Amino acid sequence: MKTNSGRFFEDYAIGQVIEHAVPRTVSGGERALYHALYPARHALYSSDEFAQASGLEKSPLDDLIAFHVVFGKTVPDISLNAVANLGYAEGRWLRPVFEGDTLRSVSEVIGLKQNSNGKSGVVWVRTTGFNQYDEAVLDYVRWVMVRKHNVDAPAPETVIPVLADALEAKDLVIPEGLDFAQYNFTLAGEAHRFGDYGVGEKIDHVDGVTIEQAEHMIATRLWQNTAKVHFDATNREDGKQLIYGGHVISMARALSFNGLANAQMIVGLNGGAHANPCFAGDTVRAYSEVLDKAQTSAPGVGAIRLRLVAYKHGAPEFALKTDAGKYHPDVLLDLDYWALMPT
Amino acid sequence: MKTNSGRFFEDYAIGQVIEHAVPRTVSGGERALYHALYPARHALYSSDEFAQASGLEKSPLDDLIAFHVVFGKTVPDISLNAVANLGYAEGRWLRPVFEGDTLRSVSEVIGLKQNSNGKSGVVWVRTTGFNQYDEAVLDYVRWVMVRKHNVDAPAPETVIPVLADALEAKDLVIPEGLDFAQYNFTLAGEAHRFGDYGVGEKIDHVDGVTIEQAEHMIATRLWQNTAKVHFDATNREDGKQLIYGGHVISMARALSFNGLANAQMIVGLNGGAHANPCFAGDTVRAYSEVLDKAQTSAPGVGAIRLRLVAYKHGAPEFALKTDAGKYHPDVLLDLDYWALMPT
Amino acid sequence: MKTNSGRFFEDYAIGQVIEHAVPRTVSGGERALYHALYPARHALYSSDEFAQASGLEKSPLDDLIAFHVVFGKTVPDISLNAVANLGYAEGRWLRPVFEGDTLRSVSEVIGLKQNSNGKSGVVWVRTTGFNQYDEAVLDYVRWVMVRKHNVDAPAPETVIPVLADALEAKDLVIPEGLDFAQYNFTLAGEAHRFGDYGVGEKIDHVDGVTIEQAEHMIATRLWQNTAKVHFDATNREDGKQLIYGGHVISMARALSFNGLANAQMIVGLNGGAHANPCFAGDTVRAYSEVLDKAQTSAPGVGAIRLRLVAYKHGAPEFALKTDAGKYHPDVLLDLDYWALMPT
Repeated sequence: MKTNSGRFFEDYAIGQVIEHAVPRTVSGGERALYHALYPARHALYSSDEFAQASGLEKSPLDDLIAFHVVFGKTVPDISLNAVANLGYAEGRWLRPVFEGDTLRSVSEVIGLKQNSNGKSGVVWVRTTGFNQYDEAVLDYVRWVMVRKHNVDAPAPETVIPVLADALEAKDLVIPEGLDFAQYNFTLAGEAHRFGDYGVGEKIDHVDGVTIEQAEHMIATRLWQNTAKVHFDATNREDGKQLIYGGHVISMARALSFNGLANAQMIVGLNGGAHANPCFAGDTVRAYSEVLDKAQTSAPGVGAIRLRLVAYKHGAPEFALKTDAGKYHPDVLLDLDYWALMPT
Repeated sequence: MKTNSGRFFEDYAIGQVIEHAVPRTVSGGERALYHALYPARHALYSSDEFAQASGLEKSPLDDLIAFHVVFGKTVPDISLNAVANLGYAEGRWLRPVFEGDTLRSVSEVIGLKQNSNGKSGVVWVRTTGFNQYDEAVLDYVRWVMVRKHNVDAPAPETVIPVLADALEAKDLVIPEGLDFAQYNFTLAGEAHRFGDYGVGEKIDHVDGVTIEQAEHMIATRLWQNTAKVHFDATNREDGKQLIYGGHVISMARALSFNGLANAQMIVGLNGGAHANPCFAGDTVRAYSEVLDKAQTSAPGVGAIRLRLVAYKHGAPEFALKTDAGKYHPDVLLDLDYWALMPT
Repeated sequence: MKTNSGRFFEDYAIGQVIEHAVPRTVSGGERALYHALYPARHALYSSDEFAQASGLEKSPLDDLIAFHVVFGKTVPDISLNAVANLGYAEGRWLRPVFEGDTLRSVSEVIGLKQNSNGKSGVVWVRTTGFNQYDEAVLDYVRWVMVRKHNVDAPAPETVIPVLADALEAKDLVIPEGLDFAQYNFTLAGEAHRFGDYGVGEKIDHVDGVTIEQAEHMIATRLWQNTAKVHFDATNREDGKQLIYGGHVISMARALSFNGLANAQMIVGLNGGAHANPCFAGDTVRAYSEVLDKAQTSAPGVGAIRLRLVAYKHGAPEFALKTDAGKYHPDVLLDLDYWALMPT
């Protein structure tokens, strides 16, 4: 058969390195589409002059564009037969991505655990995105539950990687030259700086965006993520098209501008759960909670650790989890990340 | 509170200057999206070679891209709590915008009048868009009705700015170097030149475009206009999302190619009313009326003043206003502008 | 009347040359939108580095972008009053199109045949697309049935052009410098090379994409194709908007990546039929059949002739045509083209 049927659980082995296909050169087109699909307004990603005043050569593409492009390439090899996308850890942005850069992705299998039912298992991979100079721009761990094709295939030795609950601030990579000493809070859109946020503080981002079918498909295709659950209305019995979890991440992050306009650059992804599926017609809202704060060695640059929660309906005051310990059915995303903010 | 709750009527004062946030670098991405969202075909904005043959360095971004970007930045400061967008006047395009330019906006409060009910008032601002060289690219006056937050706040002294009913032709700024002496009517798409249009002539632009929810949201976000009425289906009791008035302006202007293909550059905005709200599913049509004509000092370049009316359903022959003096409910837009046309 | 009412059958004459309006400069914006609208993943059109490793200066815009742009310009002159788009022949891609190129189109009338009912006729044109250096980038023949406006106009002499059933491999133009000797199959996404495909082989491309109204309008406008049947929901009694046939071509070609990832460049269009209309909500699937194979003079480059069939519902095993010799109502497209593949 000429078509790709994807890898099954028994096709993975510890130490296996998978070079993912279809490198991608990005341009102002991807940048403009990102701004058209999400209410993204962080000034560093909108203006060359603002980025230059912050010590960068020009405005990079949004950090989540880098993430989606790198992630999208892994789908045909990692998650085509995935039953569930279980988690992320140890994600680090290592270098900004600019127009004209070409991204490709490589994954290494770092964990395997067959489920007790013998029909599926969990695969952990560490994925690295590289640019055209073979410089790493991003790496992260994710784990997925994958079906077995041959249920009689022997179970691999169980290897569960040791993953940090969260990156420590000292492990974050600050982009070379970044300098917020001359930061223009007026042009950035909000006056609140690093010192104005307290650990434990919650910020309701107020706005909501109702998601259209055409929009999430346009977004997801842009990252060359072609998982059929997103595109084929005949794939599920209820005729619904599942929205790529990354679409919700980008929507929530963009909404968080309102209250966190100065949390400019994403540099670390500590963890994340796609708590419930999102469908067209859902109105996505978001709130953030400050989890931690740390100084960095870059001039005027602090690191802030944020929990970003996206939900539909209801109010941010609802319980994130139910009494049974499961996510409230209105919660879509529970993301834990580090961003850089002027001090 | 960290989030922006917008300014209320009592927060404005005559002479106040507001620097709007989030400067924006534009590229070929914004241009391509504009052509994907509107049936825009004016050759000067489509082809570098056509623009060069007209004396420009290359094809500028559509004049309405400049308008939308500059306008979008003002929304969080001017119209977040606006009850109504009441009008435009004295709009002038001062310099073409090219790929790579970075736009920012500044507004000055030039008029204030509290309503007799004491609960809201009208605010007039003159907004100027600047590029990265601090050159003005566009300025215009608009006025909005804004709610008071504290109804007990004292009424400001009433100042109603004196605004021209229409710009005079001598006040229009012709882009440096513009020259239509060698204008190629075949490549432009129509043979009709300046002399072929008579004052009072009406042109039915024939075509209609049915607006999709995804499209107007993509367009409006592209201009970083994040007013919730456009994006959040839960915001109104009827579940409808109000379409950004600028989307209707761009749609009508693009439709006007058919009959006005040579009305290439927009240089003046005399006035405009968003006569009735537009919603997804509406089929937008347009007609134009020639209001005035004038010579300019640039070679082969005439100025034509046009009334552009967008409407849904019905025929262009309907009465623009009802006997009671209100707009016919099918009228969406009544715009008065100056464009440049080969003589 | 100032608006374009299009040409009618009696307005065409053999040998007539029509210069189509509105040249178009393309950028990374068109490229990004193409990837956002179709699940296009052919590596040569995604990565500058992959294209350079194949002997090109950088990644060209997708061959079908060139086709759609050139085709779109012809619509106001050729198919505004067309009753049906009957066929294509002898299409050849002559030169890759890169960001920054400006495309324009010229058509010559090469055939005319009035229908026996005297109310319409068939017009054959050969259309050539040129870049800003007046180099031909694409040419193809298409024929359409066009209404007469004046049914009393005399019938022209019947001229039916002699058209090849298919281009011969020797007539294909291989892009200058193309070299697949160092082709990276891993980055391209599939291991199957020229020798792995047999004439008569059929490949089910597996995936399906449900088409949204907003998407096909965004795509069709991007090519400045403004035929009202695509955009105006009030145009047909059933309220449906007909999808531009080229949208189905691009969707099917992109789906064919899965199984034909190495059929990189399209160089010849032998024929094509839009078998049945496509509407929003249809889920498009595709299969390919290998019709022919040939060597080329370029290093490591073979030519493969493919029949690409797009259909909705059902399975690829259905009869392409019914017993009555008509296309099965689920068939949307039957396209015959040549592509280049590493040997």
